[in-house]
Amino acid sequence: VTAPLITLLSDFGLKDPYVAEMKAVILTICQNARIIDISHMIEEFNVRMGAFVLASATPYFPEGAIHVAVVDPGVGTKRRALLVQTNRAFYIGPDNGVLMLAAKKNQIRHVFTLSNPEFMLPRMSATFHGRDVFAPAAAYLASGVNPNKFGPEIKDYVVPSFAHPELRAKGLVGEVLHIDNFGNVITNVSIDDLKKTGIKAGERLVIGHKNQFYSANLFTAYGNAEPGSLLALIGSHGFLEIAVNQGNASRKLRMKTGDALITRAV
Amino acid sequence: VTAPLITLLSDFGLKDPYVAEMKAVILTICQNARIIDISHMIEEFNVRMGAFVLASATPYFPEGAIHVAVVDPGVGTKRRALLVQTNRAFYIGPDNGVLMLAAKKNQIRHVFTLSNPEFMLPRMSATFHGRDVFAPAAAYLASGVNPNKFGPEIKDYVVPSFAHPELRAKGLVGEVLHIDNFGNVITNVSIDDLKKTGIKAGERLVIGHKNQFYSANLFTAYGNAEPGSLLALIGSHGFLEIAVNQGNASRKLRMKTGDALITRAV
Amino acid sequence: VTAPLITLLSDFGLKDPYVAEMKAVILTICQNARIIDISHMIEEFNVRMGAFVLASATPYFPEGAIHVAVVDPGVGTKRRALLVQTNRAFYIGPDNGVLMLAAKKNQIRHVFTLSNPEFMLPRMSATFHGRDVFAPAAAYLASGVNPNKFGPEIKDYVVPSFAHPELRAKGLVGEVLHIDNFGNVITNVSIDDLKKTGIKAGERLVIGHKNQFYSANLFTAYGNAEPGSLLALIGSHGFLEIAVNQGNASRKLRMKTGDALITRAV
Repeated sequence: VTAPLITLLSDFGLKDPYVAEMKAVILTICQNARIIDISHMIEEFNVRMGAFVLASATPYFPEGAIHVAVVDPGVGTKRRALLVQTNRAFYIGPDNGVLMLAAKKNQIRHVFTLSNPEFMLPRMSATFHGRDVFAPAAAYLASGVNPNKFGPEIKDYVVPSFAHPELRAKGLVGEVLHIDNFGNVITNVSIDDLKKTGIKAGERLVIGHKNQFYSANLFTAYGNAEPGSLLALIGSHGFLEIAVNQGNASRKLRMKTGDALITRAV
Repeated sequence: VTAPLITLLSDFGLKDPYVAEMKAVILTICQNARIIDISHMIEEFNVRMGAFVLASATPYFPEGAIHVAVVDPGVGTKRRALLVQTNRAFYIGPDNGVLMLAAKKNQIRHVFTLSNPEFMLPRMSATFHGRDVFAPAAAYLASGVNPNKFGPEIKDYVVPSFAHPELRAKGLVGEVLHIDNFGNVITNVSIDDLKKTGIKAGERLVIGHKNQFYSANLFTAYGNAEPGSLLALIGSHGFLEIAVNQGNASRKLRMKTGDALITRAV
Repeated sequence: VTAPLITLLSDFGLKDPYVAEMKAVILTICQNARIIDISHMIEEFNVRMGAFVLASATPYFPEGAIHVAVVDPGVGTKRRALLVQTNRAFYIGPDNGVLMLAAKKNQIRHVFTLSNPEFMLPRMSATFHGRDVFAPAAAYLASGVNPNKFGPEIKDYVVPSFAHPELRAKGLVGEVLHIDNFGNVITNVSIDDLKKTGIKAGERLVIGHKNQFYSANLFTAYGNAEPGSLLALIGSHGFLEIAVNQGNASRKLRMKTGDALITRAV
């Protein structure tokens, strides 16, 4: 039998003891758990960014993995805590949408609330459910506790709203989903959306942002453009990405997460 | 039998090869060790911050864990290297106080110096005892070497000085222990200290800092306050914390680690 | 039998899902792999920095470890992907030199290209070979696939150019290899190079940089100098290092990676 696999995502950063406390709680309850960090550098309170990073990473994990995501501005309030069972994996975290972009990529079977105090730390804080509720739930689940023991099933969970691009007269109107470590601008324009604009691989396209317009080739790799010059490509998650070869597109175009942008053929 | 658990804390950051070298040395000596990072983002040379983070995290780890902490401005000088055995865990690091706030939360049984060269790397540097002394000590201990083989027992180890809050006419005079990733201001005022001021949950209190006074409610969760507004609460480690719901209290109040602050009823 | 050990180094940073996706792919193919991060904070596209950090860390890992390094500005272009077999370890990454400083510390036995699609992800992107080519290669190798199954052997791989210090009339002319987390300036001047200048431990030396000259003692430990004052020492990897005790030498001397510097006796 394989050791259970638990992943962690949060906006806790890496300076404080918080991430280690979650791992400590997991290993106290389930000593053979393997723990993998997805990211703890989600922007503070940025549920959408957490949802995006979680949904990008989790499809690559083995079946049966337990994914814990804690971007949780409502901790200690009435927001519910969830255990989501899909046909591939489990997702544990607050009921604010952070889990659902990832969970919906699979078929959701059941969504349970985490309300059974038997599977929480005995001395529970109102400020750190990552340690006191979500980590123990993951560890008990990894130890073989049946998902339906954690609390009642619900249907009215929160789903995050990610806009789909719209094809208008001026072009395809999309949104910046994420700026990565390299300054690559990852948009919500999928490869199928792009096809509607008639732009084909190798062709030039126009990107509009705040009344500035830039032209770029739709390449397949960063290195197809000259170093320092702008390009567009379909990134590793299947979305249109704007990049500068060996440079920083976000800084060059002053684009940030949430910004609207227009894409059209030249 | 469970694989031994070794945790690491340092001020090494995550850019350099230093943390990986410690892990490499551990896994060379004790191949089945499980290694968990507590934090490597302790401020450079900040022994008190290291002590605080270590003492916050280690109580959550399973019994028998081996905690290595390397915030070590005196590396290569005459400062001693220690192995501390408590009734719950082991602590390994320099004799400058970084271990002792955590170790004293349990009952200290023995404090040994690490002086036996048999349990150090053969080619020892004068600048990186994390790799050459502390990592091997943790790995040999994890492999079953008796704690008393590492060197003679001592009693005159360094204990870090953390002030306790004082109740004066103007209020309870405390200190900022730590600013976390969210800008939450964690003070040295415990829940018992706070009781002496007569402030109760849900009531308003006054926080004074450098002749500025702020009033805030003593809530139980960040989300009890309006987004952007100041609150106080007892944080996840049992200390008074000053926070801004979905904001940054440290920035708003210009408070930093080590600052004095006054707390009193309205 | 020991579980296989795979290390990861990249310029991906810790915010994005990229590192987790590599780990997910590895654990899907080789479920008992142990994965250790060397660093993901290599400067974007800085192949030389990646090579330096990899070469510093990997000698400390157990024999047979599989080291994956992804600093890969040419991803998706014609640059080749490599599997390097040395007498101690395996190195996997792009053919741009990032692997070779480390690999050449051992005896290189074979260098294979990674060209067999059987050992890549079925849906391969042109932008993320860390996930789609290098992680699967490491995992299949860890699972027992013979190195010569991944692709044909080559001899004309790229070797990074690191200059050796030169002894001239004005002194030993070297280069800054790396600035670490503490601001320590790590040079390419080895202990043997230094002997040629006639400088001995404990003696004063002169460091020249951009027509500024500084004098410092050649000490053995940071703490041998007064706090805040400049010193030189042979660092933990055997190179001359310029440091400020409990301070930041890089900031004080305005030295950065790649800068030339002169070292001579007083």
